[in-house]
Amino acid sequence: MKHTKTVVPSDIEIAQKASMKKIFEIANGLDIEEEELEPYGRYKAKLSLNILKRLHTKENGKLILVTAINPTPAGEGKSTVTVGLGQALHKLGKKAVIAMREPSLGPTMGMKGGATGGGFSQVLPMEDINLHFTGDLHAITTANNALAAMIDNHIHQGNQLQIDTRRITWKRVVDLNDRALRKVVIGLGGPVQGVPREDGFDITVASEIMAVFCLAKDLSDLKERLSRIVVAYDIHKKPITAKDLNVEGALTLLLKDALQPNLVQTLEHTPAIIHGGPFANIAHGCNSVIATQMAAKLGDYVVTEAGFGADLGAEKFLHIKTPSLGFNPEVVVIVATIRALKMHGGVSKDNLKEENVEALKNGIANLKKHIETIQSFGLPFVVALNEFVTDTEMEVSFVLDWCREHNIPISLTQVWEKGGDGGVALAQNVLEQIEKKQTAFTPLYKQEDTLEQKLQSIAVNVYGAKGIELLPAAKKQLQQIEGEGWGKLPVCMAKTQYSLSDDAKKLGRPEDFVITIRELKPSVGAGFIVALTGSIMTMPGLPKEPAALKMDVDEEGKAVGIF
Amino acid sequence: MKHTKTVVPSDIEIAQKASMKKIFEIANGLDIEEEELEPYGRYKAKLSLNILKRLHTKENGKLILVTAINPTPAGEGKSTVTVGLGQALHKLGKKAVIAMREPSLGPTMGMKGGATGGGFSQVLPMEDINLHFTGDLHAITTANNALAAMIDNHIHQGNQLQIDTRRITWKRVVDLNDRALRKVVIGLGGPVQGVPREDGFDITVASEIMAVFCLAKDLSDLKERLSRIVVAYDIHKKPITAKDLNVEGALTLLLKDALQPNLVQTLEHTPAIIHGGPFANIAHGCNSVIATQMAAKLGDYVVTEAGFGADLGAEKFLHIKTPSLGFNPEVVVIVATIRALKMHGGVSKDNLKEENVEALKNGIANLKKHIETIQSFGLPFVVALNEFVTDTEMEVSFVLDWCREHNIPISLTQVWEKGGDGGVALAQNVLEQIEKKQTAFTPLYKQEDTLEQKLQSIAVNVYGAKGIELLPAAKKQLQQIEGEGWGKLPVCMAKTQYSLSDDAKKLGRPEDFVITIRELKPSVGAGFIVALTGSIMTMPGLPKEPAALKMDVDEEGKAVGIF
Repeated sequence: MKHTKTVVPSDIEIAQKASMKKIFEIANGLDIEEEELEPYGRYKAKLSLNILKRLHTKENGKLILVTAINPTPAGEGKSTVTVGLGQALHKLGKKAVIAMREPSLGPTMGMKGGATGGGFSQVLPMEDINLHFTGDLHAITTANNALAAMIDNHIHQGNQLQIDTRRITWKRVVDLNDRALRKVVIGLGGPVQGVPREDGFDITVASEIMAVFCLAKDLSDLKERLSRIVVAYDIHKKPITAKDLNVEGALTLLLKDALQPNLVQTLEHTPAIIHGGPFANIAHGCNSVIATQMAAKLGDYVVTEAGFGADLGAEKFLHIKTPSLGFNPEVVVIVATIRALKMHGGVSKDNLKEENVEALKNGIANLKKHIETIQSFGLPFVVALNEFVTDTEMEVSFVLDWCREHNIPISLTQVWEKGGDGGVALAQNVLEQIEKKQTAFTPLYKQEDTLEQKLQSIAVNVYGAKGIELLPAAKKQLQQIEGEGWGKLPVCMAKTQYSLSDDAKKLGRPEDFVITIRELKPSVGAGFIVALTGSIMTMPGLPKEPAALKMDVDEEGKAVGIF
Repeated sequence: MKHTKTVVPSDIEIAQKASMKKIFEIANGLDIEEEELEPYGRYKAKLSLNILKRLHTKENGKLILVTAINPTPAGEGKSTVTVGLGQALHKLGKKAVIAMREPSLGPTMGMKGGATGGGFSQVLPMEDINLHFTGDLHAITTANNALAAMIDNHIHQGNQLQIDTRRITWKRVVDLNDRALRKVVIGLGGPVQGVPREDGFDITVASEIMAVFCLAKDLSDLKERLSRIVVAYDIHKKPITAKDLNVEGALTLLLKDALQPNLVQTLEHTPAIIHGGPFANIAHGCNSVIATQMAAKLGDYVVTEAGFGADLGAEKFLHIKTPSLGFNPEVVVIVATIRALKMHGGVSKDNLKEENVEALKNGIANLKKHIETIQSFGLPFVVALNEFVTDTEMEVSFVLDWCREHNIPISLTQVWEKGGDGGVALAQNVLEQIEKKQTAFTPLYKQEDTLEQKLQSIAVNVYGAKGIELLPAAKKQLQQIEGEGWGKLPVCMAKTQYSLSDDAKKLGRPEDFVITIRELKPSVGAGFIVALTGSIMTMPGLPKEPAALKMDVDEEGKAVGIF
């Protein structure tokens, strides 16, 4: 969340002025044993997977899932609330651990905006986390591209598997915004340079390996999932997997160190585990299962987040991540802001500073739908109204009153401006919900349901649609997917994050709409079927003035220009 | 060097059985202060550039440069001798530090062969060093590709600099062997996906950023060099630099942490600084200047190596690296093996096991030429005859006698089989040469010589050619290069490593040949002009059975199958 006018200094100024504790101290506070910690510099460390074995029988900490209304250009500050809530629990004397995704370099260098929270609710060292961190994304990039090189080498060396070069689904990746790589032709230059074919590059976080990495329970599960990845189809249209290429061992080796979660701290020294970061459209958009499991073994409370709004991130957390995780959230925090609710009520971005209670009245329907969704999963929740300097008293009162009328638990937060102190009310509200023990988690579909039933359930129950329509291509793919025996996998919706519907322009709570499924794409390694409802961008472009143009190193060797 | 039959276990078996000291202990032995060490796990660390500032006035350790005869498929074991010599000096009670290049993942996953020495002369942890290590190569890959993305984005966003899309010289890179990426067309798919153009990928170690990284003296020199990199020419054929794109700050930021050298240890706990690894053909093929400088401040003796044979690696070390380094080697070690000398004398690889003194008599001419070259630089030297199990007594005697006759200092080494103990004789010989103080280093050309004079000098004095011939394209490029004011830069020869000539098949000591210069390519950031004498491969391909197919992780999470 970026506030327009305030006395709070910039994120990087706050971050660089902060005094961090040595990572050993943070680890000591979590009873991590010395040999379980691999330091990466003084303030970052990798955590050994042995921690999960050692604490196998220990009860899991209470899981708090932070989600949001549909995002708008106004910004909701979900990561900032996640960090702030962790800090607030810490302030209340609770042993809280934060579990978050790690940022991708592409957006950091592209549009202004890191992914480490903001203001006085940040994870540190913010420059390191936003740049190379501990190299996890580089390892994933390398594994993805090693697999691609093996495919083209196999074809070049005689193509024993009879791969149809027109039906290679595996793309290469870079962890950058680079639109010129979206569609390419490779293998040009004659017979010594390989076999020409169409190809394309995605951004690393869109790689199926990232999704696999984030759902794997341990090294052997990682290898098992990697071996299942479908990379192409042969001339008989039968799937070719990484295992057919005999490369799953090398890929596992390339990812072995990266699979260990990363421990860092917040500005208030609350431990944070930052690990994995898959796209929230073509993948499930949550940090790794291993990171969340570890946080739950090390802390009494775990604050974690899911990508985009509750229609995408929370739904996927609950249907895709939870089965691998083995336990479910006790309570959900739904982040909303006055500004975003006004946009959902029809106000344009330029007019957000003006008080507009009428727009709020309309826009709050978006929040209401997400609340209903969380309730339908049988989960208690708290609305976090993340305050902004331009919010008026009347607007805030309207939302508070509306919640009171509807018997909806709500707390105001000022975590950006005040850090943990600004989240204490929210933390108390969250703890209260947990103590009530009213959690009765129920997925909205059953594992054994058909893909169509699953799609229907999400569209109707989560989006509020009348139903779904499968375009002819998707119908054909459905048959093929069922024919291959993948028909019982969960679905992973690739839908615009801006609307509950599949039309980005329909804000608020759209009604009377149908979700159109254009394409079904198996991610067999990750273990889900991606349902595309529109064209989803898997390789962002750079703006005219990329954020990178402001980046530099000062005379003391410090990072400059990361926002 | 890989021995065929021996009781010595495999490299990875030796490496994984070894007991390493904590990296803090290794650093303590070098009087590195605690805040100057950034641990990466327990056995690797980055060293702060402050060490160079703190020890600015301290006398440099004696520099020992390890080079070799022209490499053959028989293997010479230059890295193994480098590590073994460092260990041997350590055994003699000397404060020795090894400085080496870091390996590229491409060859490690492609053809059997890491780059961390062998047998009982290895640097550890060998798996880590051969895989992601501390992420330096990933940082270089990212910086290289960020610059490429900025070029294509600039063109897409209106091309204010009037870049000629047919004259973009900057290529993308991956740290893999991937022949299908050598020649590609990017920007396909219509106006939203960028501007279509021809492009290609090199392997990361061939990136000019790698050369820049290895020649930079500090962060500001790095930035200065990055800003000078020529990425394209505009429609008026004027060079476009990274500075014109305003991206040198971001590139410096991406490389800031990587620029700190990496400290590890050998099997015998000798400190080794492993940092940077540019190609030895289109670049200069030595570890970073900063690493060598730091080794010289921390140790009394520094053992370092240069790529390929003395005609390429040592020549470039002495003409390109030494000026940035600020000091020169005191002594040069020239590694040779009986097997390789026999190949230079005309024996095929399959017949190497048979005793053949006649072939040795012919092949030793290759060694003789390299000795003369080192002498012409005014440097003392020692020949290291790296023993192999198939060498016969008669063959060894022949080489020893030949050296005695010619008054050439020589030592036998068994560092692969015996570690430091196998290199003690060599170490004593090297120390003796240093104590004689007969070093009178003189470059073979002057900075102010023209490019043609420099080319001529290297061809005649180092290769033993009659002269050079510039093909018409190269002549034209020479004019352009001089026109841009780059005519006084040193030259960086891109020549086959297998022969003293530019014909890979001419082994031994070819005579009566001319070096044909086909192309001149400015690397203005690195600060040299690459002279191509043939087609140089900057993106290797994978063999039919890549080494990666044997790689895996065992049940304990240990690496398997790295050789």
